[in-house]
Amino acid sequence: MSEAPASATPPSAPTDESYRAGAVDLLGALAYGALTAFERLADDAQKAPTLGDKIHMATMAAQQIAYFDRMRDRLKEFGVDVLVAMRPFHAPFDAFHEYTHPKDWYEGLLKAYVGDGIAADFYREVAAFVDPETRELVYEVLSDHGHDEFVVSQVRAGIEADPKLAGRLALWGRRLVGEALSQAQRVAADRDALTSLLTGTSDRPGLDLAAISRMFSRLVANHTKRMAKLGLQA
Amino acid sequence: MSEAPASATPPSAPTDESYRAGAVDLLGALAYGALTAFERLADDAQKAPTLGDKIHMATMAAQQIAYFDRMRDRLKEFGVDVLVAMRPFHAPFDAFHEYTHPKDWYEGLLKAYVGDGIAADFYREVAAFVDPETRELVYEVLSDHGHDEFVVSQVRAGIEADPKLAGRLALWGRRLVGEALSQAQRVAADRDALTSLLTGTSDRPGLDLAAISRMFSRLVANHTKRMAKLGLQA
Repeated sequence: MSEAPASATPPSAPTDESYRAGAVDLLGALAYGALTAFERLADDAQKAPTLGDKIHMATMAAQQIAYFDRMRDRLKEFGVDVLVAMRPFHAPFDAFHEYTHPKDWYEGLLKAYVGDGIAADFYREVAAFVDPETRELVYEVLSDHGHDEFVVSQVRAGIEADPKLAGRLALWGRRLVGEALSQAQRVAADRDALTSLLTGTSDRPGLDLAAISRMFSRLVANHTKRMAKLGLQA
Repeated sequence: MSEAPASATPPSAPTDESYRAGAVDLLGALAYGALTAFERLADDAQKAPTLGDKIHMATMAAQQIAYFDRMRDRLKEFGVDVLVAMRPFHAPFDAFHEYTHPKDWYEGLLKAYVGDGIAADFYREVAAFVDPETRELVYEVLSDHGHDEFVVSQVRAGIEADPKLAGRLALWGRRLVGEALSQAQRVAADRDALTSLLTGTSDRPGLDLAAISRMFSRLVANHTKRMAKLGLQA
């Protein structure tokens, strides 16, 4: 039942059912994303060239579980079990990871950097339309904790040592974006609650199609910037 | 240089060089143990039969990194880099894990339960002879955080569903103990600082051979109790 005014103030508490369902979907996606990121980073840790690199990746992996816990706790406040909230996201996340299995240390690093970068940008856009408390949580979890810097210095050093790496990683980056967008479309098609956060409902303002298209342009522009930081063409 | 009295009071601060070196070894072993436990638990998480089990194992793995951080911080207070302190323990820990690679979910659970159980008992015995602050930290990190209960209920349910599992796991448990003791002997032979915590020095009391033998009896007795909790013969 909607208790929100029919006009255009942003939501301050999740009383509107369509906001609430969208926030639950967002938290479910982030929780499952954190779990799969844990597994991926733990895998990357095993491929780390030095013990120091291994510790870095293991620390990143452990951080994902801390994020997961935050999502689970917030979902509990919404009265939703995290296992239930994550369910719609198993298929798209698992498919993404199945199709983008890194062959080596560098592909793993780039995947974390590019994939999480786009996902984080997208989640941030969506979070603008949920209740402030959930939004705060999402922003906090998505803030960079020094991993980007680690990836940039590692990849740049790798390319310096072996210039051929640049071509392979540029290709890999394009494949990652392609797969990520294709899975995002799948989510958008399946999860009305999540997409209606962006598009709005008759009661509640959202983005029109032109605004959504501008949002995608921002995602792509940020991706291009991230690749450029590595010295790679997007 | 020793500033400790030549007589028999327990150490209250790591001023005695042989205490200090022993504490650094103990912290180094625990830090490397936590890192390898992280990797093993993250592997186990991938084999988990349900998503709930996966979350449990991933949470356990993440906890190891929190422990690792505590050891690293304490080593820093001793002026020792964690990478340096861990170095003597690479070979024995890596060998242990290489020789005891679990074939399935249950073997992984038993390895965590039996291996960590014996290791924790041993570290606790050694910690009795280091400075109180380090000792507190070691006790805290080694306290059970509910994982034992999880393993016991999982293994018991597994054996109920497939009684043949009991024989295989009993055998696996004996193999784990054998490998653990053989690697522990290797450490004892290589690391005078660690063993002299137990045996003492001319300046400082320790355990005599009879006391060390009693300590090993305690370790074995605790192991037998742990196996019995699973309904398995040690």
